[in-house]
Amino acid sequence: MRTVTAENITDTFIGYFGDDTDPRVKQIMSSLAQHLHGFVKETQLTHDEWRLALELLKWTGDITTDERNEFVLLSDVLGVSSLVDMINSHPEATSSSVLGPFHVSDAPPMDLGADFKRHYEGEIILVEGVVKDTSGNPIAGATIDIWQTAPNGMYSSQDEEQDINSFHGIFTTDENGRYAFTTVRPVSYTVPSDGPVGKLLDATGRHPWRPSHLHYIVNAEGYRSLVTEVFPDDDPYLDQDTVFGVREDLVTTYKPQKAGTFPEEGFELSGKVDGPYSRIDFDPILLKK
Amino acid sequence: MRTVTAENITDTFIGYFGDDTDPRVKQIMSSLAQHLHGFVKETQLTHDEWRLALELLKWTGDITTDERNEFVLLSDVLGVSSLVDMINSHPEATSSSVLGPFHVSDAPPMDLGADFKRHYEGEIILVEGVVKDTSGNPIAGATIDIWQTAPNGMYSSQDEEQDINSFHGIFTTDENGRYAFTTVRPVSYTVPSDGPVGKLLDATGRHPWRPSHLHYIVNAEGYRSLVTEVFPDDDPYLDQDTVFGVREDLVTTYKPQKAGTFPEEGFELSGKVDGPYSRIDFDPILLKK
Repeated sequence: MRTVTAENITDTFIGYFGDDTDPRVKQIMSSLAQHLHGFVKETQLTHDEWRLALELLKWTGDITTDERNEFVLLSDVLGVSSLVDMINSHPEATSSSVLGPFHVSDAPPMDLGADFKRHYEGEIILVEGVVKDTSGNPIAGATIDIWQTAPNGMYSSQDEEQDINSFHGIFTTDENGRYAFTTVRPVSYTVPSDGPVGKLLDATGRHPWRPSHLHYIVNAEGYRSLVTEVFPDDDPYLDQDTVFGVREDLVTTYKPQKAGTFPEEGFELSGKVDGPYSRIDFDPILLKK
Repeated sequence: MRTVTAENITDTFIGYFGDDTDPRVKQIMSSLAQHLHGFVKETQLTHDEWRLALELLKWTGDITTDERNEFVLLSDVLGVSSLVDMINSHPEATSSSVLGPFHVSDAPPMDLGADFKRHYEGEIILVEGVVKDTSGNPIAGATIDIWQTAPNGMYSSQDEEQDINSFHGIFTTDENGRYAFTTVRPVSYTVPSDGPVGKLLDATGRHPWRPSHLHYIVNAEGYRSLVTEVFPDDDPYLDQDTVFGVREDLVTTYKPQKAGTFPEEGFELSGKVDGPYSRIDFDPILLKK
């Protein structure tokens, strides 16, 4: 009889695979078992700790709905989501960053230069740029799905005062690959901390804050989809984003502009700005498929 | 600004811990992050694979109820539960083995020598032994919580034909540390395979079978609680238990006994057996606290 021991359990696990198992499944499951077993042995995990871990997973399942996926949030605060983004990013293209749970399907199409902020007040920003390929050529007809928090720190799906499409919209680049819109500055906010992820953050003395950001999903025919975020360089949480989403090429300067300079030359903007505002330039670079 | 990269994300994660974090929490979470990040990097996990893993976890949460905990089952088939048992076992005491999901609280107390099988038919077995300490001294007054499948392969909580206490009972050892009961032989069975764990077993070409076994929880004042299982040495799944529960010291021989030899001398047994039967000797050894 084969005696399974702490020394041979990983090999035993791998030995159980059927001969026809897909090689990639085999590779992933072998690596998972090696690391899970390594974790248990390295920490000499007790039965009580194992039971607690299973309770936390059950709670994660219990709190998860179609609107709030606590497993994604758990992956985010453990750095797993960002690591998947990093290893799948190409150095010549714009870095990807976490999708997060607040994207909505079917955001409304918006005109180039549209005003995003509706009646909301706050520091007005003009966001503009060119979608490019890795050789620097502009990409016309690319779609840019943008979303952000309202000035109260909430996304539309979290906030009874906003309809679902508030601060969500899809722009299409013009023949020069350009996009532009006006909005109010997004704010730093906390990830939901009333569930198991909040418990985990508490237990490790971590805060639930994220630096403010604009979310982007950029798509163009023949190019890899880019899911990313754009951060201001003066946010206090830039160096300690609780979901590890910040990359150097995603940090931009909010450049203060004088009153009376809006709209700038060459822009057709639907918003009206009398006072000073800030300008953000961000050029998403896409990788060919 | 600190740029989080695939190379420094684990150190960044560890750097986020608050100064007052409990050292054991720090140790466990650091090891978890190291292994999770190592797994992602080693496999170069794609976004699609990451999304699939999160879907499987959400499904695991959706299918989990108070009666069926799919997270425990996942831990079982990944070998994690058994590994926790192994590293927390003491070489001088009886090995522990998986609790499984079919234990019931408040099983009925049973007399020494009671008949466990009620009206069920099958190969009759007499199970007997002495609960001992690691020096071989008998422990009087120890409680032994026993449960097993009915001959149809189902535990009481899975089977409409059985009441909840069917094949569940608690024995107390006599002044010589002895316990004894009669029952029918438990059978090999499959773990639930209609959920994400079944999907995982399928994808890796694994079967869902467990060798037949009797479950034991042995408790005695001043000793560590022992959760274990006892297997017959002729079960076809002994070398490929899908939850890795088999240990050498938990395998016993079902010794055939001739008709007319029951009850054996020295036993007071409430069951009646006319034909041949089998005898199992199993002495649980407990570790002092």
